[in-house]
Amino acid sequence: MTPRHIIQKKRDGGILTDDEIAFFLRGFMDSLVTDYHMSALLMAIYLRGMTKGETLALTREMRDSGKVLDLSSIPGKKVDKHSTGGVGDKTSLIIAPIVAACGVVVPMITGRALGHTGGTLDKLQSIPGFDPHPTPLRIVAQLREIGAVIMGQTDDIAPVDRRMYALRDVTGTVESIPLITASIVSKKVAEGIDGLVMDVKTGSGAFMPDLKTSSALGESIADVCRKLRTKSVVVISDMDQPLGKAIGNALEVQECIECLNGKGPADLQELSIVLSAHMIHLGGRVRTVAQAEKMARESILKGDAAKRFREIIRMQGGSEHVMDDSSILPKAGHVQPVKSAVSGFVTRCDAKRIGLASNALGAGRLKVDDAIDPAVGIRLLKKVGDKVTRGEPLCEVHWNDESSLRDALPLIKEAYEIKSRAAKPRPLIHRVFTK
Amino acid sequence: MTPRHIIQKKRDGGILTDDEIAFFLRGFMDSLVTDYHMSALLMAIYLRGMTKGETLALTREMRDSGKVLDLSSIPGKKVDKHSTGGVGDKTSLIIAPIVAACGVVVPMITGRALGHTGGTLDKLQSIPGFDPHPTPLRIVAQLREIGAVIMGQTDDIAPVDRRMYALRDVTGTVESIPLITASIVSKKVAEGIDGLVMDVKTGSGAFMPDLKTSSALGESIADVCRKLRTKSVVVISDMDQPLGKAIGNALEVQECIECLNGKGPADLQELSIVLSAHMIHLGGRVRTVAQAEKMARESILKGDAAKRFREIIRMQGGSEHVMDDSSILPKAGHVQPVKSAVSGFVTRCDAKRIGLASNALGAGRLKVDDAIDPAVGIRLLKKVGDKVTRGEPLCEVHWNDESSLRDALPLIKEAYEIKSRAAKPRPLIHRVFTK
Repeated sequence: MTPRHIIQKKRDGGILTDDEIAFFLRGFMDSLVTDYHMSALLMAIYLRGMTKGETLALTREMRDSGKVLDLSSIPGKKVDKHSTGGVGDKTSLIIAPIVAACGVVVPMITGRALGHTGGTLDKLQSIPGFDPHPTPLRIVAQLREIGAVIMGQTDDIAPVDRRMYALRDVTGTVESIPLITASIVSKKVAEGIDGLVMDVKTGSGAFMPDLKTSSALGESIADVCRKLRTKSVVVISDMDQPLGKAIGNALEVQECIECLNGKGPADLQELSIVLSAHMIHLGGRVRTVAQAEKMARESILKGDAAKRFREIIRMQGGSEHVMDDSSILPKAGHVQPVKSAVSGFVTRCDAKRIGLASNALGAGRLKVDDAIDPAVGIRLLKKVGDKVTRGEPLCEVHWNDESSLRDALPLIKEAYEIKSRAAKPRPLIHRVFTK
Repeated sequence: MTPRHIIQKKRDGGILTDDEIAFFLRGFMDSLVTDYHMSALLMAIYLRGMTKGETLALTREMRDSGKVLDLSSIPGKKVDKHSTGGVGDKTSLIIAPIVAACGVVVPMITGRALGHTGGTLDKLQSIPGFDPHPTPLRIVAQLREIGAVIMGQTDDIAPVDRRMYALRDVTGTVESIPLITASIVSKKVAEGIDGLVMDVKTGSGAFMPDLKTSSALGESIADVCRKLRTKSVVVISDMDQPLGKAIGNALEVQECIECLNGKGPADLQELSIVLSAHMIHLGGRVRTVAQAEKMARESILKGDAAKRFREIIRMQGGSEHVMDDSSILPKAGHVQPVKSAVSGFVTRCDAKRIGLASNALGAGRLKVDDAIDPAVGIRLLKKVGDKVTRGEPLCEVHWNDESSLRDALPLIKEAYEIKSRAAKPRPLIHRVFTK
């Protein structure tokens, strides 16, 4: 067995055996298989695909490249949620406290912003003092005490994924269903969870823009989860326009707090409830998803979810005062409205362009080591279906740097489309399925 | 422009611009483009292909990565021949003296054995003292004086090809028509030649086993040559059984001398004359290929070709005495016949298996730095169409090491197929064309 033979087999459309996948990935970690071997194989996988069996073997091998967390000392089922990423996608901060308040343990591992989508970790770090990297001991203690932790990935979870992802990023092999599946699922199952709710986004701001490929990715993830004995539910949700109204780190934290107090934008509130309900159901707390949904809504009405978020912030060193006074969050120096040039109905508020505009303002990063500005962002005042009159503001731009404002404004103007008739709205949730 | 964008474009089946190809290859030589970027692009090219325009741009860029020889101080047209490689393919040693004897200058650059095919340079080095690396000054002096030199490639000819080939070899991206075309033509045009005769092999022992892909490779090479203003003729010749009867370095040199004295095997003699004739015609010495063929045959009959080979050997430091007494060539310690188990007609003498058997004996190499044994090899006594009776020897194995003999014998037995009726013979020359 040589790296070349394995690459040639995949190049010619062959099906790699479990042993061949193990040889290649272990060799890669041992430096017997080089970066150039790996990038040739990744391109061959991108263009030739992988069967379900190959994707499973790849996922298992990636998971086993590092530590698998043992959370068995914590009573109850552990459930996590993962999203393929979107613009204004802040549900993690709302869901973790809701689900924990409903009695299911949530060891939530989240990522940083990259490209045009935001990262949960960056959002949390706009709360003064918040520590996204508690020690393993503190993680376990916090999960026992309040049932939820929201943290960044550690180096010992699926280390081969980090090296493979770095190569995929620079060699144009990111958007491959088997490679995305293995990357997501290997890390999630290494967290030692019993169930996973997978929020696969679809639309202009999503990784996979069309419903067909989003569904195929969801099916692939659910399939591998099932074979690895991790229960999963896939929710295909819309990302053609941003989720909620706030885009940008501190602005999004503020909106999450509004949501936990039952005062968030309808789409964000609704998706958070649906995702939470599937997690509560996977966690075995109730017999039906409908019951779980009722439980989730009640946790907000009774104030339990907001209280749980306060506890998460406190236990992770953040200033819990943010729950009472969001003015302690970083604030941009300037706020400027973008006004509509015509009257009519908003027929499009393009998520990708809004995401790129928010990035241009400094809220995101292009490279992993770029600094971000937690204060800047965009607050949408009008979304798809809303009526607007000429001169009325479509959104507010929160900015600090004038040249970045100049980069962002044209993108925002391109994002909006106003027509004389309202368009048929896209559903918020396109599909929900399990395997 | 970034390496990733160029890789993605080819990955998606796009057509790279000349600037993109130049950016990538120059970046690769400057270390801005890494090995892993290059191997991802090579795999994308392998699977997506390249247009004629892209292949031309790639060839030009590869040629310009190093020196282009200036042979303009030497009067007359300079013509070379290149073969895609085969088993027992020793025509270079016969052709260079014939064509030089007919008044056309032959600056012949040849390679070493790799895989199951032999290398001209290794064959020449079985002649005691022969120097395959004359200095540039000596090359020019020799070309002026006797019109031919046979030498190894220097480091300053198309250096990017060496680095790309090393990556292709280990990442399974060798057998790609645009990549092979650019690799061959870039080096040949860098020799400063006016014309190229391209011997593309087809059959089991060839790089491209079927006639369709061999023809496609020939067309691609002829096309790029035409656009680079280098005249070319493509000869598609058979490599389903070995060429001639000798396989192995010293054995092949001996057969070449027999050929130059008009006493070689019919197929080798014939192909050498045809290839020589096209070179002489490209060199402008005669008006028709038929006249060139007559001239080539006469150079053998009159002894001019043999005399010219003697001069080449002498000027490159070799022992010219080999022309009078081939016993000075290295000799294997043992010769063993392989006898036929049945009576009938030889219907197959598989070139690839015979090549692998010769390699197993020590005549070739698997890795570039393997040592070779110049004495060992195989002398075929029966070829396709020959009648054989049970117990009669099919070939002689010249061997030195008993364990390698054990590896070689089963391959030889598998190579031969004997049936009760003779099969229809394959043509020696399948196609000849020019652009």
